[in-house]
Amino acid sequence: MNTIGHILTLTTFGESHGPAIGGVLDGFPSGIEVDAEFIRTCMQRRRPGQSTVTTGRQEKDEVEFLSGLLDGVSTGAPIAFIIRNSDQHSSDYDELKDLFRPSHADYAWEQRYGIRDWRGGGRSSARVTAPICVAGAMAQLAMRKLLPGVEITAFTSQIGPYSTNPAKDMEYTASMVETNAVRCPDEELAPQMEALIHDLRKEQDSVGGCVTCTVKGLPAGIGNPVFDKLEATLAAAMLGINAAKGFEYGDGFASASQRGSEHNDALRMQNGQVTALTNHSGGIQGGISNGQPLRFRVAFKPTPTIGREQLTVTRSGQDTTVAAKGRHDPCVVPRAVPVVESLTALVLLDQYLSSK
Amino acid sequence: MNTIGHILTLTTFGESHGPAIGGVLDGFPSGIEVDAEFIRTCMQRRRPGQSTVTTGRQEKDEVEFLSGLLDGVSTGAPIAFIIRNSDQHSSDYDELKDLFRPSHADYAWEQRYGIRDWRGGGRSSARVTAPICVAGAMAQLAMRKLLPGVEITAFTSQIGPYSTNPAKDMEYTASMVETNAVRCPDEELAPQMEALIHDLRKEQDSVGGCVTCTVKGLPAGIGNPVFDKLEATLAAAMLGINAAKGFEYGDGFASASQRGSEHNDALRMQNGQVTALTNHSGGIQGGISNGQPLRFRVAFKPTPTIGREQLTVTRSGQDTTVAAKGRHDPCVVPRAVPVVESLTALVLLDQYLSSK
Amino acid sequence: MNTIGHILTLTTFGESHGPAIGGVLDGFPSGIEVDAEFIRTCMQRRRPGQSTVTTGRQEKDEVEFLSGLLDGVSTGAPIAFIIRNSDQHSSDYDELKDLFRPSHADYAWEQRYGIRDWRGGGRSSARVTAPICVAGAMAQLAMRKLLPGVEITAFTSQIGPYSTNPAKDMEYTASMVETNAVRCPDEELAPQMEALIHDLRKEQDSVGGCVTCTVKGLPAGIGNPVFDKLEATLAAAMLGINAAKGFEYGDGFASASQRGSEHNDALRMQNGQVTALTNHSGGIQGGISNGQPLRFRVAFKPTPTIGREQLTVTRSGQDTTVAAKGRHDPCVVPRAVPVVESLTALVLLDQYLSSK
Amino acid sequence: MNTIGHILTLTTFGESHGPAIGGVLDGFPSGIEVDAEFIRTCMQRRRPGQSTVTTGRQEKDEVEFLSGLLDGVSTGAPIAFIIRNSDQHSSDYDELKDLFRPSHADYAWEQRYGIRDWRGGGRSSARVTAPICVAGAMAQLAMRKLLPGVEITAFTSQIGPYSTNPAKDMEYTASMVETNAVRCPDEELAPQMEALIHDLRKEQDSVGGCVTCTVKGLPAGIGNPVFDKLEATLAAAMLGINAAKGFEYGDGFASASQRGSEHNDALRMQNGQVTALTNHSGGIQGGISNGQPLRFRVAFKPTPTIGREQLTVTRSGQDTTVAAKGRHDPCVVPRAVPVVESLTALVLLDQYLSSK
Repeated sequence: MNTIGHILTLTTFGESHGPAIGGVLDGFPSGIEVDAEFIRTCMQRRRPGQSTVTTGRQEKDEVEFLSGLLDGVSTGAPIAFIIRNSDQHSSDYDELKDLFRPSHADYAWEQRYGIRDWRGGGRSSARVTAPICVAGAMAQLAMRKLLPGVEITAFTSQIGPYSTNPAKDMEYTASMVETNAVRCPDEELAPQMEALIHDLRKEQDSVGGCVTCTVKGLPAGIGNPVFDKLEATLAAAMLGINAAKGFEYGDGFASASQRGSEHNDALRMQNGQVTALTNHSGGIQGGISNGQPLRFRVAFKPTPTIGREQLTVTRSGQDTTVAAKGRHDPCVVPRAVPVVESLTALVLLDQYLSSK
Repeated sequence: MNTIGHILTLTTFGESHGPAIGGVLDGFPSGIEVDAEFIRTCMQRRRPGQSTVTTGRQEKDEVEFLSGLLDGVSTGAPIAFIIRNSDQHSSDYDELKDLFRPSHADYAWEQRYGIRDWRGGGRSSARVTAPICVAGAMAQLAMRKLLPGVEITAFTSQIGPYSTNPAKDMEYTASMVETNAVRCPDEELAPQMEALIHDLRKEQDSVGGCVTCTVKGLPAGIGNPVFDKLEATLAAAMLGINAAKGFEYGDGFASASQRGSEHNDALRMQNGQVTALTNHSGGIQGGISNGQPLRFRVAFKPTPTIGREQLTVTRSGQDTTVAAKGRHDPCVVPRAVPVVESLTALVLLDQYLSSK
Repeated sequence: MNTIGHILTLTTFGESHGPAIGGVLDGFPSGIEVDAEFIRTCMQRRRPGQSTVTTGRQEKDEVEFLSGLLDGVSTGAPIAFIIRNSDQHSSDYDELKDLFRPSHADYAWEQRYGIRDWRGGGRSSARVTAPICVAGAMAQLAMRKLLPGVEITAFTSQIGPYSTNPAKDMEYTASMVETNAVRCPDEELAPQMEALIHDLRKEQDSVGGCVTCTVKGLPAGIGNPVFDKLEATLAAAMLGINAAKGFEYGDGFASASQRGSEHNDALRMQNGQVTALTNHSGGIQGGISNGQPLRFRVAFKPTPTIGREQLTVTRSGQDTTVAAKGRHDPCVVPRAVPVVESLTALVLLDQYLSSK
Repeated sequence: MNTIGHILTLTTFGESHGPAIGGVLDGFPSGIEVDAEFIRTCMQRRRPGQSTVTTGRQEKDEVEFLSGLLDGVSTGAPIAFIIRNSDQHSSDYDELKDLFRPSHADYAWEQRYGIRDWRGGGRSSARVTAPICVAGAMAQLAMRKLLPGVEITAFTSQIGPYSTNPAKDMEYTASMVETNAVRCPDEELAPQMEALIHDLRKEQDSVGGCVTCTVKGLPAGIGNPVFDKLEATLAAAMLGINAAKGFEYGDGFASASQRGSEHNDALRMQNGQVTALTNHSGGIQGGISNGQPLRFRVAFKPTPTIGREQLTVTRSGQDTTVAAKGRHDPCVVPRAVPVVESLTALVLLDQYLSSK
């Protein structure tokens, strides 16, 4: 339940305000050099507090590797790593102990388990995505060796009313994404998104958005029918991210309005390769990569934690209200970008290993 | 890879033009009476040829149960069932043997496996969803006993330009869905959708659409964090259906444009129950059902098989064209409705069994 | 629960007196030619009624393949097959409906599931091993291509008081095994074993025994630490066979009396290969094959079904007695030989696929 | 591969001389109070250095819990724990870097992964069983609540030539086991076993042995046919312990010499319960517990690390010799006792959770 993958598996653990969060990556190929600097960079991208648009929590997020490496090279044994929780002000959350926050997992979790770690969202905190980024960075390092030339690029494609033009999806590169705090590669939209987030912070409100992800250079023939389709495992991975509400690939929901003559991707031989003239399909057919770039989009709801007063109920069944205190992140989307990238790397590497 | 579920597992098998298709349902609760008439009805709904809007293939789709039942009652042993393929005109497909159809799995499958069952789409045919409907009907029978009062209703919510009003999602009932051939509970839209499909058949074209599914009466506390969230398993199941391109639950992609103050579902006590005043969340929080109705939507692309001539390539790497012969189904959506319902029942029963 | 394997999975189904038994083999490599004659031969070996020492049940055991093959070649899609139950005299078992046979699964199964298929042992019948033999034959065909030179030889190494000399384990070949009805490659012991079985049939009693299995030509490096060790997966597979009571590999239980200086296998270079001078280890170290032949042994209890009158109880809790009617097989061991071989092939192929 | 269990899963990680070893226990029931003192006691039992018969390594083995607990109560979230490796003299092993020790996993691991953590056996060290003991203690705590009255007792039943009388298996209790350093409940044998171990230490040799385990009070109906039988999962778990060479349950290999009339357990009603008059079966029938006590035995080979000079080869393919330096444990059996108990608890709790 806390494990993803079939051959390459990642098991994560940890709560927002427990001693540590972390993960165990099993089935990872042996002989991969772990570039610590690369992993640190990947981690930093997810980490809040590094820009003006995100939450005030200062997380150090230093990764300690506990196993599976010999002189920095993977041995085939499970790679465990932990990140200590350094910024734990559990008392900030004392008043949350006895009530259920609206549109949080509080009530559902308590119905499921009869007990709930109320400190900072416990296991349902966005903090649990940090180990995913460590593992995703590891997966990217393995892919450099096993699937060279594959380029995964995730970016903020929508925040509230501002959306990038899907026709430009394939033009965006990793370096363009990192030029601004909202991780939007469109130079005109990024400042507007930033301004919106600043306004919402003042208004004690939040906003939703979308992350788009493209994968260039992926060979055809990776994936598995019928219940382990590449798109299905990607969808499951993405819907596992906190606040995710939807997944679509290729033309996605827009396909519903299209005709076959419009949606079908005609094939031609180009440079000796079977090549699709368009990519409405998004790089996958029948669960298997078709040699075209992958392209998918994930929708996120607005951060449920807002400073405004909201109606809710207590654990003992009394109507009450709640308003979040402190500084909160009005939009999860910029921080979700590296998580989407990481899960994509994990899914692709796992599917590659099972498609050999 | 051809198995779905964790405690309750369904393994399906079979190709469009092989001797038979079928499935093995394992982990099914013992002591459930199998209502053969109910299963037959569920099967008939998926079956093409029963209405004017679907493909001309006449499938008998008679289910033979091979194991796991004693005098019609489940014993806890795996329940295997097969459906013979009666309408096999493999020769119709002879010319497809040596080319890759656009936006079909032909090329990707061949890159994956080096060999491809070209007869009628082989394992990638929509026919492989028939065993899902048998298993889904079984799951519904078990739910009647284990989760009484749960009502799963899927319906066509979009075909091409025609969309139902999402505000009415919860009003639609199973009986309203079955009043017309397109399975759209909106009386005004249904005839327009039917007309569009008839027109497209003449034009040798096809169209996409959406299926919406609601689940009423589901108790809170069903689901599993973090990588086995209820929404993630539903998404994976739905993206496994042929031609599915997207999944969203609750407000889904529309959440991306919303603010937290707008999206959050305020809680109040009503009749002694924690109750959400709205259901933007779609009945799930943090991977676990929250006691509100589930609501999700699946997008489907237009049927890739169309009568119009399309550019494509041969297996030996020559540019060519292809145009489908015979009578084809211009829209998969009406037939996907019972498949969505079946997978929902399978996922919910499995998640219920693992949440006990 | 009815599935074995990780990458190559076999799901079996079926009861002794249901319509059919069968299996679904998923993850099977594509491009393998299915030699129908070879599979038929493998099946015949398990089949009772083919020799004077086994049960009188005449099973035709004709295998019908339902999917996953195109012109006799595997496509990568799941391979489903069924064997019809032709010799069903359920009424023979009518009196067993309301009592629990001693040392059968009757009582345990009913406590587990609340219902039990009493006809011929239902799902607990030895008949459920037939699909294993089909799948094992398939696995052997794949190994011929992927792991050429691997030779799996199982044989009867003990029946009651008669045991082969373990020092000769590696000398025995498949053709020696098939020279007699008890599948014992020792020419002197075989007739004594046969005579014992004939005597026991007259005495309405039964006897236990052992199957030894060797695997020559297996490369080093196949297997997975820590909980998926080659010996652990073999043990689990073997203990899944009806009536199996024990598993040991290498020197097994005899190791308990040995000293390290006696048990350790000294290593030398021979023909450029790291070579063990002895093979007390049985070809596996730390869960991974070490390049020496595998050698393991499986113990089986006497057939619990005997003609003698035994004390037992009824389902309603009354003391009673039971004596099996008809002709029964006094020793399961000869029939277990091909099952051991088949499971070995399945485990090795699966472990090989996950060790690549 | 480093995960055991289906609903309750344990993933372990860590090498002998890495920073830490540990595990993640997922699917653990919520609401269980963690008795830290009990877990510490269980850990101490496995820990070497606490008696005169074991290795000189002084391991502190302090367990740090990282997640899944709130005020000492399980929340349903994964429970991660680590044990720091404090006694790491990697340099002791420097000369092992370039040779393969006889009957160790060195060569097989290197063939599998192309790289090997040579420091103290790396992932193949007996040290990896410590996290199993932590998880086993957790499982025992959960069983006290969910399966009250179940009593798991493992003990040393053989060391070299000294064996306990199997007829007394059921008489031994946990307190009798802990009265001596070899964990043998037979007062006469224990001193002889101790003396043998002391002699072998002087002789720089080692010896094998057996652990027997009984489970009293287990209800009927726990387990799963066909490939997930209780005996099969127990066998796989036990064969996963370092140095294990065999598993048998009930009369085990002795059954091979028995007749059915002798082996079958007659049933009678006693105190309103279906009761077996004997327990040759060892408490399991057809994969499911039958209400009688479980009884099984695990064989262990002599510790492969001995001070005597042995023939072996270097990584570069040169014949050489090796002799272990320092103080080594001549017999793994006493330390394996708590590991057997722990794995039994984990398997039983997992099977119980999947049999509900």
